[in-house]
Amino acid sequence: MKVRIDLAYDGTGFSGWARQVDLRTVQGVLEDTIAQVMRLSEPAMTVCAGRTDAGVHARGQVVHVDFDNWTPPARSASLTADEALRQWLPRALPDDIVIRQVRVVPSEFDARFSALERRYVYRLWDSLANVDPLTRGYTLALPHHVNLDAMVQAAQHLTGLHDFVAFCRPKEHGTSIRDLKELSLVRRDSGLIEITARADAFCHSMVRSLVGCLVTIGRGQRDIEWVKTNLLAQARVNDIIVMPAHGLTLEEVTYPSDEDLGLQAERARTRREIPR
Amino acid sequence: MKVRIDLAYDGTGFSGWARQVDLRTVQGVLEDTIAQVMRLSEPAMTVCAGRTDAGVHARGQVVHVDFDNWTPPARSASLTADEALRQWLPRALPDDIVIRQVRVVPSEFDARFSALERRYVYRLWDSLANVDPLTRGYTLALPHHVNLDAMVQAAQHLTGLHDFVAFCRPKEHGTSIRDLKELSLVRRDSGLIEITARADAFCHSMVRSLVGCLVTIGRGQRDIEWVKTNLLAQARVNDIIVMPAHGLTLEEVTYPSDEDLGLQAERARTRREIPR
Repeated sequence: MKVRIDLAYDGTGFSGWARQVDLRTVQGVLEDTIAQVMRLSEPAMTVCAGRTDAGVHARGQVVHVDFDNWTPPARSASLTADEALRQWLPRALPDDIVIRQVRVVPSEFDARFSALERRYVYRLWDSLANVDPLTRGYTLALPHHVNLDAMVQAAQHLTGLHDFVAFCRPKEHGTSIRDLKELSLVRRDSGLIEITARADAFCHSMVRSLVGCLVTIGRGQRDIEWVKTNLLAQARVNDIIVMPAHGLTLEEVTYPSDEDLGLQAERARTRREIPR
Repeated sequence: MKVRIDLAYDGTGFSGWARQVDLRTVQGVLEDTIAQVMRLSEPAMTVCAGRTDAGVHARGQVVHVDFDNWTPPARSASLTADEALRQWLPRALPDDIVIRQVRVVPSEFDARFSALERRYVYRLWDSLANVDPLTRGYTLALPHHVNLDAMVQAAQHLTGLHDFVAFCRPKEHGTSIRDLKELSLVRRDSGLIEITARADAFCHSMVRSLVGCLVTIGRGQRDIEWVKTNLLAQARVNDIIVMPAHGLTLEEVTYPSDEDLGLQAERARTRREIPR
C-alpha cells in the first residue's frame, strides 16, 4: 500500500527537509514519528516533492511512504495503514508540522517524479514601517524601497524555458534547464510584496536566486541587460544574491490524475537524466 | 510637544504591555529604548490606548509621549523630537516591535482617553488539518469543529449596550457597562475563523471571555439562554472560559479629528468615573 501525505510546516526550527545526523530536520521528525505511531522497527522511508532548505517553509509539501507489510497492533486489528496514520500521526507530531491529508494512492504515484509543477512564494516588505511583526517568521524585511515595475519587467525576461545555471548551486550531474511557467509579483494592500515562482521543477537555490536578481533590479543597482546576460551564463553567477531562506514557502505541488501517473513519472525521470 | 506613536508588536516574547520589574514588557522596552535614543536621563513616560495582556499582539497600538524640554544632541541640533524619534527609534527597537508612524499631535490628544473605538480580532482554527503552522503564533488551534451559525446568533445577543460584568475580571472601581458595537464572525477560505470585537472600550479579559462564550456555544455545550443569562449576571461568571491570549490581536484604535479631541477626552473620563 502506497500512502500520500500532504503536510505543512514552519521551517524556522528545522535544519531543512533532508534527514541529517544530530540535526532536527522535517524528514527526520516525520519519519521517526511515523515509525513510532505505526510501531515500525526502523524509521519510515519518505520521498518528498521538494527538498526545502534550512529555514524554508511549506504549506503544500507532499510525500509518499510505502506500507507493504504493515500489520496493525492487536487492539486496532481492523485499521489499514492509511487509517492508522490519519488517526495517530497528526497529534503525535510537534506543532510546527501539520498533517493536511493522508490518502492511498496508486503504486505508480511518486511524490517527486509524478509532480507536474511546484509553486513557491517569496514574501518581503520594502519599508520597515509596513512590516507586520506577527508574520516576521515567514516574511523578509528589506530596509529600502524597491521599484516593483522594474522587477515585473525583469521577471518577464526570466520566465520561459531557459538554462538557469546562473541561478543554481553547482551540481555534478543533471541539467539546469527549467521551464519557468510563472514569475509574478504583486503588492498587497498591507504593502507586502509576494513573488510567485512556478515551474516543473527548480534546481537548488533557484527561487531565492531569482528573487535576489529581482531585488537587485528593484533597487536600481543593475539594469535589464544584466538579467539577459545572466540567462546566457554558462555557470553560477556569483553576484546574484541568494535571498534569506525564511521568506520562502513551498505553497503547492500539482500532480496529474491517477491514470496519467505512470506516464508523468517516466517523463520526469528521462528529463532529469539529460546531461548538460 | 506631544508625540503620537503608532506601533505593532508580536506579543509572544512580552509579559504584556505594562512595565513590570524584571520582566520584558512592551512598555518597558519601548520607554527604555526611547530614553536611550533620545538621551533622556530616565525612561520616557508613555500612555497607551489598550493595555494588552501577556501574549496578546497588536497591529494598531497607539501611545502618546510628552517631550516638553527636549534638546537635541549637538550633532543633530536642528532635529525636533518627532523627527529624532522617526529617525532613531525604529532601528533601535528589537524586531518584535515595529514603529508604523510618529507624529506631533495637539496637546489635548490622549492615547487612552481620546480613543473613540478599539477593534480586536481573535483568530482560531476548528480543525487541526486546516491549521497553518506559519501563523500559529497568533492563531489558536481548536481540536474540534464549531458551529459558526450558532456562534453568529449568540454574538447578535451580545452586541449593544450591556453591563458586561459576567465577562470581566473583578475590579474595585469603575463600571463594566460597555457599548459593544460589533461582535462578528467570518470564516476565511483557509478555514480560519476571525472574530471581530469593536467597542468604545473593553474591560479586562472581556474580548477573550466573549470569544470563550461563543466557543462554548459553537461546541453545543450551552444554548442561547445561557448567553442571555450571562448578560443579566451581577458578577463575573466563572464558567465563561477566558480564551488563550495568543489568538488575540489589537488591530485598530480610532480617534476623533484634532478639533474634537478635547471634548472626547472629557467624555471618556466622565464615563469611566460612573460608579456601578
